[in-house]
Amino acid sequence: MKTKAAVAFEPNKPLEIVELDLAAPRKGEVLVEIVASGVCHTDAYTLDGRNPGGYFPVVLGHEGAGIVREVGGNVHGLKPGDHVIPLYTPECRECDLCLHPKTNLCSALLETQARGVMPDQTSRFSYEGRPVYHYMGCSTFSNFTVVPEIALAKIRKDAPLDKVCYIGCGATTGIGAVIFTMKVEAGASVAVWGLGGIGLNVIQGAKMAGAGRIIGVDINPAKADLATQFGMTDFVNPRDVDDVAGHLREMTGGGLDYTFECIGNVDAMRQAMDACHIGWGESCVIGVDGNEFTGHPYHLLYGRTWKGTMFGGARGRTDVPKIVDWYMDGKIDIDELITRTLPLEKINTAFDLMHQGDGIRSVITY
Amino acid sequence: MKTKAAVAFEPNKPLEIVELDLAAPRKGEVLVEIVASGVCHTDAYTLDGRNPGGYFPVVLGHEGAGIVREVGGNVHGLKPGDHVIPLYTPECRECDLCLHPKTNLCSALLETQARGVMPDQTSRFSYEGRPVYHYMGCSTFSNFTVVPEIALAKIRKDAPLDKVCYIGCGATTGIGAVIFTMKVEAGASVAVWGLGGIGLNVIQGAKMAGAGRIIGVDINPAKADLATQFGMTDFVNPRDVDDVAGHLREMTGGGLDYTFECIGNVDAMRQAMDACHIGWGESCVIGVDGNEFTGHPYHLLYGRTWKGTMFGGARGRTDVPKIVDWYMDGKIDIDELITRTLPLEKINTAFDLMHQGDGIRSVITY
Repeated sequence: MKTKAAVAFEPNKPLEIVELDLAAPRKGEVLVEIVASGVCHTDAYTLDGRNPGGYFPVVLGHEGAGIVREVGGNVHGLKPGDHVIPLYTPECRECDLCLHPKTNLCSALLETQARGVMPDQTSRFSYEGRPVYHYMGCSTFSNFTVVPEIALAKIRKDAPLDKVCYIGCGATTGIGAVIFTMKVEAGASVAVWGLGGIGLNVIQGAKMAGAGRIIGVDINPAKADLATQFGMTDFVNPRDVDDVAGHLREMTGGGLDYTFECIGNVDAMRQAMDACHIGWGESCVIGVDGNEFTGHPYHLLYGRTWKGTMFGGARGRTDVPKIVDWYMDGKIDIDELITRTLPLEKINTAFDLMHQGDGIRSVITY
Repeated sequence: MKTKAAVAFEPNKPLEIVELDLAAPRKGEVLVEIVASGVCHTDAYTLDGRNPGGYFPVVLGHEGAGIVREVGGNVHGLKPGDHVIPLYTPECRECDLCLHPKTNLCSALLETQARGVMPDQTSRFSYEGRPVYHYMGCSTFSNFTVVPEIALAKIRKDAPLDKVCYIGCGATTGIGAVIFTMKVEAGASVAVWGLGGIGLNVIQGAKMAGAGRIIGVDINPAKADLATQFGMTDFVNPRDVDDVAGHLREMTGGGLDYTFECIGNVDAMRQAMDACHIGWGESCVIGVDGNEFTGHPYHLLYGRTWKGTMFGGARGRTDVPKIVDWYMDGKIDIDELITRTLPLEKINTAFDLMHQGDGIRSVITY
């Protein structure tokens, strides 16, 4: 079949809207009509050629929501008409990772997904007879895409797809880091570096978990208003203080219970570790930075813990439907974070807005 | 009163055996007759002038065992004749740290202990009328010492003091890191960097916890025999392999469940993190290194955890008596680790042996 898609033919060029050929779903695969897709920094990271694992030409996009249109052989859990969110962190429920109680990672697709192909080592997308790569196992910048069944979360049909697509990455990453990875408890103190989409979701996750103090750290004071609306109790601008970590330790009588780095900056990671309370403070890295972080052994010897999270520690098929419920029940807010909804044809505008820091999230609809 | 003691009058000089004046225990303090004391690398670290918090002249020693001889006012939990192990990590059971379920640290003495004085800001030791500093709140290289009640673990009287003194630091640090800090579970895979005193105690802790594979990593193959006797199942010499972490990941089908750095070397810390399994591997820093460690954000993003431990995560007054029980019940071995027992007069020989790497632990008796 044919599908309209935004294709990245090479790094650092605008995406091109073209008609691709899409092969039918094979064994264990599902054809999904994507209804909406968020545009995320990770897509830009790859488009900018900074992702060493980026292959071109490629259909980017990993934060989508859609409707099952056809299933391949041996697919038993999904049928045409089901509403789904594609998962870049699948959940096969059979591998050593899935069966381990401490992680949400899954090894089933790690290798092939990283190489931009389906589990049988081939691509379903092609353009003028040449294969086009998949991206993060999702490729949601195509109106139709093929995804393995184990990488699809089935969600309730009354959830608006142009909103809950955000649960495919940003919302889950931030909220999940608090709830699933760090297990923040009621009354705990929390600090968040970076008040963009991930940081705001960490804040609403912390609020949902009943955290006491929720401190936001950002060099842009304009971000404080929305963060406050989402639950931030205190704002710290690193440009206003000499020693951010020392200032935070002083504000909190010794340091934070939990800190979250949502920028992707190794200096901020170090600050977030430094700001933890001795004995029990735990810092979670969410942002990606190609550089290495540094720490002093005493950070750890004095009982601080350094952790990280991928997809917020959420097991995709198990937890994503729960987060959709939280949204539908009004426990979390997504609408406010989706600043603009644009047609696929304007997808390059969405990238421009993101680079300009204009708004939180743009969503593309078909 | 007078007490015989080994005094470090200045850095990088042999200790001198002299007779010091010792003031009576004040409110909340206890006079302890030290019967035996281990000589630990941390004492040497301070004697060598490398410890930025070292004050001179000082009575070093922090791994002792002895008998209560006199109590000051307001001491209710100890009486003359009680057997005790002094604690450089006290347990006041009243501060924010003691009352937090996640840590064994205690803030009661942090400041004064770091400055080499008792809680009232003064020293009980003096020589020719001038004060001599306390060390780590213990100063076990003196036949008699004064210690706050909250820094004394009361132990059973049938335990041999010239053996269980080792529980005052080395044994607890290694065994506790496994049991209390990392909570290694039966069947888990463990790797240990450095097969000295701490590493061997990590190994016997891992064996006690029922760990499956226990891999020792050391550049000295001569250490493998004793480590095997303590429970090591595999030995890796970093000089025999190009990529230690990669080799360990291959040996264990993806990486270790738990790794322990017992050298105090930031390169080993990095290897120990690298060797952890994605998703759940946890690395524990035990060794002290004045340098900073480095890591890649992906280490953490892929679900590895970096932790550290002080005194093995043991709450001194609560857990040290239990570890003495484990020794008396034959669950852990200490005798084999105490290579030599020397009189106080030969304490500089004990330091020399340690610097030469000759034996595991020397114990000084009075």
